[in-house]
Amino acid sequence: MNTEKNRNSLSHLDAKGQAHMVDVGSKEVTERSATARALVEMKPETLLKVIDGGLPKGDVLATVRIAGIQAAKKTSDLVPLCHPLMLTKITLDIEAINETQIEIRCTCKLSGKTGVEMEALTGVSVAALTLYDMCKAVDKGILIKETCLLTKTGGKSGDWVNEQEGNV
Amino acid sequence: MNTEKNRNSLSHLDAKGQAHMVDVGSKEVTERSATARALVEMKPETLLKVIDGGLPKGDVLATVRIAGIQAAKKTSDLVPLCHPLMLTKITLDIEAINETQIEIRCTCKLSGKTGVEMEALTGVSVAALTLYDMCKAVDKGILIKETCLLTKTGGKSGDWVNEQEGNV
Amino acid sequence: MNTEKNRNSLSHLDAKGQAHMVDVGSKEVTERSATARALVEMKPETLLKVIDGGLPKGDVLATVRIAGIQAAKKTSDLVPLCHPLMLTKITLDIEAINETQIEIRCTCKLSGKTGVEMEALTGVSVAALTLYDMCKAVDKGILIKETCLLTKTGGKSGDWVNEQEGNV
Amino acid sequence: MNTEKNRNSLSHLDAKGQAHMVDVGSKEVTERSATARALVEMKPETLLKVIDGGLPKGDVLATVRIAGIQAAKKTSDLVPLCHPLMLTKITLDIEAINETQIEIRCTCKLSGKTGVEMEALTGVSVAALTLYDMCKAVDKGILIKETCLLTKTGGKSGDWVNEQEGNV
Amino acid sequence: MNTEKNRNSLSHLDAKGQAHMVDVGSKEVTERSATARALVEMKPETLLKVIDGGLPKGDVLATVRIAGIQAAKKTSDLVPLCHPLMLTKITLDIEAINETQIEIRCTCKLSGKTGVEMEALTGVSVAALTLYDMCKAVDKGILIKETCLLTKTGGKSGDWVNEQEGNV
Amino acid sequence: MNTEKNRNSLSHLDAKGQAHMVDVGSKEVTERSATARALVEMKPETLLKVIDGGLPKGDVLATVRIAGIQAAKKTSDLVPLCHPLMLTKITLDIEAINETQIEIRCTCKLSGKTGVEMEALTGVSVAALTLYDMCKAVDKGILIKETCLLTKTGGKSGDWVNEQEGNV
Repeated sequence: MNTEKNRNSLSHLDAKGQAHMVDVGSKEVTERSATARALVEMKPETLLKVIDGGLPKGDVLATVRIAGIQAAKKTSDLVPLCHPLMLTKITLDIEAINETQIEIRCTCKLSGKTGVEMEALTGVSVAALTLYDMCKAVDKGILIKETCLLTKTGGKSGDWVNEQEGNV
Repeated sequence: MNTEKNRNSLSHLDAKGQAHMVDVGSKEVTERSATARALVEMKPETLLKVIDGGLPKGDVLATVRIAGIQAAKKTSDLVPLCHPLMLTKITLDIEAINETQIEIRCTCKLSGKTGVEMEALTGVSVAALTLYDMCKAVDKGILIKETCLLTKTGGKSGDWVNEQEGNV
Repeated sequence: MNTEKNRNSLSHLDAKGQAHMVDVGSKEVTERSATARALVEMKPETLLKVIDGGLPKGDVLATVRIAGIQAAKKTSDLVPLCHPLMLTKITLDIEAINETQIEIRCTCKLSGKTGVEMEALTGVSVAALTLYDMCKAVDKGILIKETCLLTKTGGKSGDWVNEQEGNV
Repeated sequence: MNTEKNRNSLSHLDAKGQAHMVDVGSKEVTERSATARALVEMKPETLLKVIDGGLPKGDVLATVRIAGIQAAKKTSDLVPLCHPLMLTKITLDIEAINETQIEIRCTCKLSGKTGVEMEALTGVSVAALTLYDMCKAVDKGILIKETCLLTKTGGKSGDWVNEQEGNV
Repeated sequence: MNTEKNRNSLSHLDAKGQAHMVDVGSKEVTERSATARALVEMKPETLLKVIDGGLPKGDVLATVRIAGIQAAKKTSDLVPLCHPLMLTKITLDIEAINETQIEIRCTCKLSGKTGVEMEALTGVSVAALTLYDMCKAVDKGILIKETCLLTKTGGKSGDWVNEQEGNV
Repeated sequence: MNTEKNRNSLSHLDAKGQAHMVDVGSKEVTERSATARALVEMKPETLLKVIDGGLPKGDVLATVRIAGIQAAKKTSDLVPLCHPLMLTKITLDIEAINETQIEIRCTCKLSGKTGVEMEALTGVSVAALTLYDMCKAVDKGILIKETCLLTKTGGKSGDWVNEQEGNV
């Protein structure tokens, strides 16, 4: 296997294997969007403290939503090689999909030169951490699972759908 | 079910269900530590671009490590109801545990009035996001799974081990 | 008037009138708390969009609360000569006190060497800005008035109550 | 009253009352500006420690100015649903308008898709907090009052002047 | 000497000598780049702990590189009158130029209304601080010297080369 | 030469050469201080725009001072392996030491488990960058030279004075 070529194909490394923030100056400005997802798995009785009969209880979900939205804006501060971006839209949806799992989805949009996949993934990740934090006094074993990108649109590489995820 | 009592048992909500940063002023200063873990699942050929024969390639793992360490320090800025803390130690370990999975572990320590579970979880989460970012040009379907707390020590609630995780 | 003496009495300036972060190293660690307040005045119909019959509508108040709590933690980053602190408690209360005014109160606590007045004031100020932001599409003339410290306890200067504020 | 419609008219909430960062992707890029104002009221002897005969004393006003300018740039980090923006201009003016009141004005400009009202308001608010901080050792009863937007230009909603403020 | 004129010629001060963030709204969008440099001087035995035979040892250089790249993105938060920018490229090169000196170079690019000199200088400065931090346990006398701008391109003032620096 | 031993002697690397934030949990709390220095060299006519006859002109030096103080507080966010600290004092002094050089000194204090050398060095570095920024419209060739630690006190390694610097 041609190791040198493999290494170079990781776009954030240069030919010497050194990290850099890649030049997107010559990329086209296109409309870009991305949606990511995280599943937070907890005991049924924990879930009922957060959402009961479809109704959110207290400030829990709003806190999770705000944390995720603010984190999406901080992506380039958290993920070292991400470009600073001016997102034009962030939404964060939270839903109990069964009696032990809460799904968090984040969609980001941008009219710009680089994709917003990392922003959507950062949004769901920090939202999931915040949900853990709100519930940890009663359930330390909560699991954040299946954090992944669901779809992206725009850019040179075009649209992409995560085909392994049945519930997209 | 006594909903009122349930709601109150989420420590970050007051009796009216409103979010607050809880008073830890009267808690004892004890030695505290926490270890969290995330698994990042990717195609075998992606993993070989990052680690080959146990040897890291280029700056990838160092970038992931630095991102996780810096994020652990930012926890109270990311997770809204976390207290600002002065961590005395942060380590981040990254290891390929089979041909498709990289495990990230973060351990944080503090001599203080509140636990460091969220700091360890934030460390592994942002490290995993950074690993995704480094590899996404070749593999958008990477999955971050099984992010969870493995152990904690110290504090009034004492030590805790995640018994559902066989590989602790 | 002895201008030199006056100037020096502003603790954040040295004898030459230059800004510095004062030395609190030799101050005693005491329990400290502070409560600040802001009034946000709006049209009655705007207020009804936020709180109706005492019930908050949607995520508005939770968003305001989270923004204020997070801002209190950022005080030393915003107000240049404030010391970094590890607040042990932050609460933020929001209440309609009549049909055109919403009162925001923030209480901060610390076991430390310097007071938390600025943290409480920063909390109510950013909470008020966020309330303005949530409502500005329908009412740009909203006024943030009477932002002030209500009480403080602890420290060498001891307890203090704002006697000009009847509604403390 | 049609509560549902009212709630929706708060642009930062969706139809379910959930907070989101609204989509400005399709809005036009126009020249935008906004000017906000805060009044800081203190004892006459406090004011003389800051400005005497029109001359600033020491670093106080420069510190206030820098704090306000830096805060305007942090608006999207402080106010959760604000879009990140690349302000093209920030000015902050500070003036004693009588023997007990100092007026702070902040003007922000942008060539972009969303207004800069919150940036100007954040600038004056943090500047006022910093002025309080500089003076609090001698006057804890300082009041920050009448923080409001004075004017805005640009955007779909066009120009706006605060007609209740005689001293615009 | 015409002091008034001199003072005004510092672009970040207005006619009264007050700091402001200058209006770049009417400046043209051009391609801009800047390269800065810092030299870090240490004992030969310290340098060998970092780079040996041209090979970096452990995570030192990667840590320095990531710190510099992240700092360049934070420039407008660190240097008070800098405009927020969306850099399109950041690279950071580190090289031992003799047995006691390591040279750090940072290049930034932007398609925008204002130059990126400060971003390149901030990148090398924080990278140099990080290199100091990594080595300070063995060599506290490390010197950061000759931090300067090497070249800039774009903007109304056009291209510029630092002619005093022989090794550009 | 025993390379393995050398590498380990860099305290921020573990035995495998991987970066970590070292455990200071068992270190003693002592009074610690550090003073760092940077020299900024510019044309004589540039220096006169900043300081004339010993008198600062306009807001330049105050802006530099505030930038340095705020940066010292951000050290653990900028330098990846630094511990978060609660500095008890920061002072920043700026002086023209001859007709082409301005010396910036920063002193930081802490009662804590780890030294404040990096905080003092970060303070002078960002102050020097800000001075460059204020003057760059008239003098792009400004050089930041001789940034170094002058003294430190406290901690297990005890006091230290930079003996190569004649002007300590």
